[in-house]
Amino acid sequence: MIKTPYLLFLGDAPDALAAKVAQGIRDWRPEYALGQLCLPGCKADLGLPEMTLQAARDAGAETLVVGVANRGGVISEAWLDVLEEALATGFDLASGLHNLLRDEPCLAAAAEKYGRQLFDVRVPQVEYPIANGVKRTGKRCLAVGTDCSVGKMYTGLAMHREMKARHMKASFRATGQTGILITGEGIPLDAVVADFMAGSVEWLTPDNDPDHWDLIEGQGSLYHVSYSGVTMALIHGGQPDALILCHEPTREHMRGLPGYALPSLEALRDLSLQMAHIANPACQVVGISVNTAGLTEALAEKYLTEVEARMGLPTVDPYRYGAARLVEALEALT
Amino acid sequence: MIKTPYLLFLGDAPDALAAKVAQGIRDWRPEYALGQLCLPGCKADLGLPEMTLQAARDAGAETLVVGVANRGGVISEAWLDVLEEALATGFDLASGLHNLLRDEPCLAAAAEKYGRQLFDVRVPQVEYPIANGVKRTGKRCLAVGTDCSVGKMYTGLAMHREMKARHMKASFRATGQTGILITGEGIPLDAVVADFMAGSVEWLTPDNDPDHWDLIEGQGSLYHVSYSGVTMALIHGGQPDALILCHEPTREHMRGLPGYALPSLEALRDLSLQMAHIANPACQVVGISVNTAGLTEALAEKYLTEVEARMGLPTVDPYRYGAARLVEALEALT
Repeated sequence: MIKTPYLLFLGDAPDALAAKVAQGIRDWRPEYALGQLCLPGCKADLGLPEMTLQAARDAGAETLVVGVANRGGVISEAWLDVLEEALATGFDLASGLHNLLRDEPCLAAAAEKYGRQLFDVRVPQVEYPIANGVKRTGKRCLAVGTDCSVGKMYTGLAMHREMKARHMKASFRATGQTGILITGEGIPLDAVVADFMAGSVEWLTPDNDPDHWDLIEGQGSLYHVSYSGVTMALIHGGQPDALILCHEPTREHMRGLPGYALPSLEALRDLSLQMAHIANPACQVVGISVNTAGLTEALAEKYLTEVEARMGLPTVDPYRYGAARLVEALEALT
Repeated sequence: MIKTPYLLFLGDAPDALAAKVAQGIRDWRPEYALGQLCLPGCKADLGLPEMTLQAARDAGAETLVVGVANRGGVISEAWLDVLEEALATGFDLASGLHNLLRDEPCLAAAAEKYGRQLFDVRVPQVEYPIANGVKRTGKRCLAVGTDCSVGKMYTGLAMHREMKARHMKASFRATGQTGILITGEGIPLDAVVADFMAGSVEWLTPDNDPDHWDLIEGQGSLYHVSYSGVTMALIHGGQPDALILCHEPTREHMRGLPGYALPSLEALRDLSLQMAHIANPACQVVGISVNTAGLTEALAEKYLTEVEARMGLPTVDPYRYGAARLVEALEALT
């Protein structure tokens, strides 16, 4: 468990997109985001107070989170100096980079010397079991997509925020690097060894109160040939009671796969339900989440209305317009 | 690539089942199986010549294969003595054990000293790519099962043997530990990291002659919640042109999952085809392989006849009665 609150390290991010991990934390856990720390040349800005390491420690920050993608797969000298100083100042470090903090000798030595922890969240921290398929108590909701990167994580986080506002029992269950850094815990599913994927999802979503909802962060898509196995493990390990279909309407082909068309929402609904019924015969598709970031307000509203009429399911952009109707669809199940 | 031929180490196997890896090699690659080496108390016997290490080396054996499951997850002192002597005698070592040869200091040191190789086939040897979904030349056939351990590997190996006898171009593509030790190469799919599963299957089954068939060893089942993600990656990474449905008719529930019923062959056919069509719209189900080991000859023939009439597909037990009709179904596709 990564200690909060965080100081968000933006390094020398060349643009806002490079700092999207930090942006995700700021958007969804503002209470964890005490401040930001930029290096010269940084082009990202989260609008948080710019803080020195010592000022952030004095304000209570526990962990320096590397909230930026590094260039070329190398952690630069300039970064290393700051990260080493952070350990000396009393911070733990957390990162979702491919290059591991623990593989940098100076950081490993400094963590040892100062008694601090290095969290490489892309590396599984637990020996997950093989899935046993036993039915668990409590309720689970999983976002499944027509493609990768269509807004599954933001859908789950928006629903979680709405449920907490309604004082419902709910947990967002992170399954990817950004989600883990947002919530402080979870499983890096795409880095889990094949035999243990479904078991790691069972481990992540254990028995709970009958009226408690796990909002499981989706990954990949059953229709994305590179990652469909990961999605499959989420559906069978998560044994969801409810599915939310996620879609991005301006995509011309499956992400990274020219020549592969996106499926229809009808096809996604039918195939996902068939798969989900193997682990939980009671599973239902309860709503549709559309990422309308690429559409004007007028076009977004028209699109949502059309899809809702066609599919007969509450259809919203939960980030743009709120997740209330999706949450009400879950409430109707319990 | 593991060098052949092999001397098969049976250790102190408590029964024949404990030596099933060695049995698989003997059944499917008798030309690789020069002899066997037992320790006192061994209850397994492959019917091969019992050979000393030196006699096997003199006869041309290159690799000592640990063809037996060890008890309690520990490689015993008695085994270590033999394995170390084998390295000194000029053998490479190969093993599919959970406990790795390389983790035994005496074996690692002896391999270094004598310039020999240790093959822990449960550990991926390659940095596999992310799958790109690009259509490859050549033909591919995948065995999919109603459950785990229903005979998918034996089906592929039986078809491969029949195709070689007919001078067809064919490769058996191993995806599990036993398959790798049988063929000397392959991918340990259940040990591959989630993001790279489908990519490893693409890597295993590259472009080939238009009339060449890859017979891809199946793993798990779309209906087995513990391993369905692995099966999914085989279907999408393998982009098969032909599927063989595999079934074991005496199973009362999914292996290791009490309360989970096996699907019908019709359900397996329909779901597998839907999934396969995402990667290859031309994929067809061409035949059914039934493991009738649990049935008398009369019951087996009755069962095969009934299934064939019901499903309208060639239905055989390829290990008991030969794979000719399954191979003819492939020939009809090209």
